[in-house]
Amino acid sequence: MKIHNFGAGPCILPQEVFQKAAAAVLDLNQSGLSILEISHRSVAFDEIIDNAQNLAKELLDIPKGYKVLFLQGGASLQFSMVPMNFLPQDGKAAYLDTGVWSSKAIKEASLFGEVLTVASSKDKNYSYIPKDFNLPQEASYFHITTNNTIYGSEIFEDYDVAIPLIADMSSDIFSRKIDVSKYDLIYAGAQKNVGPAGVTIVIVKEAFLEKKARLVPTMLDYQVHAKNDSLFNTPPVFPIYVSMLNLEWLKSQGGVEKIEYQNLQKAELLYQEIERNSLFKGNVETASRSRMNVTFSAIDEDIEKRFLSVCKEKGIHGIKGHRLSGGFRASLYNALPLSSVEYLVETMKDFESSKS
Amino acid sequence: MKIHNFGAGPCILPQEVFQKAAAAVLDLNQSGLSILEISHRSVAFDEIIDNAQNLAKELLDIPKGYKVLFLQGGASLQFSMVPMNFLPQDGKAAYLDTGVWSSKAIKEASLFGEVLTVASSKDKNYSYIPKDFNLPQEASYFHITTNNTIYGSEIFEDYDVAIPLIADMSSDIFSRKIDVSKYDLIYAGAQKNVGPAGVTIVIVKEAFLEKKARLVPTMLDYQVHAKNDSLFNTPPVFPIYVSMLNLEWLKSQGGVEKIEYQNLQKAELLYQEIERNSLFKGNVETASRSRMNVTFSAIDEDIEKRFLSVCKEKGIHGIKGHRLSGGFRASLYNALPLSSVEYLVETMKDFESSKS
Repeated sequence: MKIHNFGAGPCILPQEVFQKAAAAVLDLNQSGLSILEISHRSVAFDEIIDNAQNLAKELLDIPKGYKVLFLQGGASLQFSMVPMNFLPQDGKAAYLDTGVWSSKAIKEASLFGEVLTVASSKDKNYSYIPKDFNLPQEASYFHITTNNTIYGSEIFEDYDVAIPLIADMSSDIFSRKIDVSKYDLIYAGAQKNVGPAGVTIVIVKEAFLEKKARLVPTMLDYQVHAKNDSLFNTPPVFPIYVSMLNLEWLKSQGGVEKIEYQNLQKAELLYQEIERNSLFKGNVETASRSRMNVTFSAIDEDIEKRFLSVCKEKGIHGIKGHRLSGGFRASLYNALPLSSVEYLVETMKDFESSKS
Repeated sequence: MKIHNFGAGPCILPQEVFQKAAAAVLDLNQSGLSILEISHRSVAFDEIIDNAQNLAKELLDIPKGYKVLFLQGGASLQFSMVPMNFLPQDGKAAYLDTGVWSSKAIKEASLFGEVLTVASSKDKNYSYIPKDFNLPQEASYFHITTNNTIYGSEIFEDYDVAIPLIADMSSDIFSRKIDVSKYDLIYAGAQKNVGPAGVTIVIVKEAFLEKKARLVPTMLDYQVHAKNDSLFNTPPVFPIYVSMLNLEWLKSQGGVEKIEYQNLQKAELLYQEIERNSLFKGNVETASRSRMNVTFSAIDEDIEKRFLSVCKEKGIHGIKGHRLSGGFRASLYNALPLSSVEYLVETMKDFESSKS
């Protein structure tokens, strides 16, 4: 049975990427060596990481004066590295609280300085993106989470703010066009639209790096990684290689603009069905609905249980919602084909018919 | 041409591991999903990480009361995490300086408290392991680097000390029997005898975790990772999977005792040839010679250059020494077969004959 992988991450990547990655595990470019046994100081790996950086720059149209880094530790380590590097001990940082991941980022920042939470949608179980908030101009930076994987909301706007803007884009980077010039630092755990688990992409304005606020342990110092082009120590070779393959695939598909159009199509198709279908309802207010993680609920627990078991029978994988949000979550990352969404929508329709 | 990979790391792993890893990139255990697209919260991954932990425990005969963790950031991040967690601000830590990696660990520790370097072999370009040193009993722990990848020296003794013993075993863990009970914490970047780059193994005594010396950012807190069995955040799924495959292979070979015997054979064969061959000489004093990284020099620069080019012609890969040590370095990790060492020795003999 064909499996349709709607998992929230680590998630589906293109079949072509799996095939090329498997081939390189056996023999990297007819070198006689596996990608798993090459040195990170080799010419072969230099080409890989350069290629990955250049693809990221090209695909996101990153302006001059920015560095693209490949680090370890996931977004969770970035939650600490950002304030450790850029929030002075007697300083303040502004955070927008749009879900669990924002809250975790806030918790880590508060170890290093004062956190000003400018707005929160916690009052309605994070079902919307707050609109009206004032940004304290004394803050060292403003931190946002552009896509809230658990609750299914997304910020589509590149905020125009007077203080440095920092964004956790773990679950929507490369899914839509962004204006990188509006941001001083963007980070993303790779395991959605970048590549497999085990690498974190950081896009940082070089001028911003100069604002380091304290003495930082070497491995947590963005300046060190920038100066060493992500090769201060042994990087996660294979996750970076697969990320390169995945970005090559994205380019071959027509790039971010093209994939954004497809992502919009996929999301609209599913949201329309959720609205139409009498057995389901959406969790998030319309203007804030994520294109990456579509969260919805059944009208009652029995329906929920039955639909989950139908999905299991039908090879619809990873659709159970996060325990904090409940119900269902269909993740529609770049590599998920429109045909999988059509299949899910058909299954929802058939399920409704079978109940009436 | 067959390549004999003597690289210092990321390094050779067993061919069987490459084959199984490649198969899982296409389809993990006939699940219809790639190892690169499964959730770290799935049953499939639970089995993988449990299996990896249990294999590590079995192969190293780890006593009860220890945790095995799989983290990110390499030994380089451990250099900071160790003092951040266990060196109080007004405290002291003892370090043995046996090479560049020890020195880097010392540098990071000195950000957190006072470092007492009990001995150093820097005076002779790290060509020996210091023997006579006094351990200050007021130190919170004693840190050693058991194998010095760059210089080719190794500590074979599990020191019997009265303060907690912490060891960086990045390049010799799983290569020989150790008495884990003598250590409070052992860490190792995986990319030698554990698995591919991108994961770090930590073996820590649970009672030692209680000695946390300060408030630590969540991702840098060993207690957090221990409590969450390495699943606090998304772990590096594929590097952990390949590590599991590699430890399975090690078990199938007869375990650590058997591989230690083979490693000894391989190292003796090569050291004997270096001693016998009139064109080469060893870098390290006999009692401190590493079984993992055999460093040696040619009698002059011309010989060095010529032998390097012979190696290139013959498919002997990764044998150029580190720039700090010069000459040659042949890394003889677990997965390197005896036949590759025999081939290198033959090549050295033929090279000598061709010069006479």
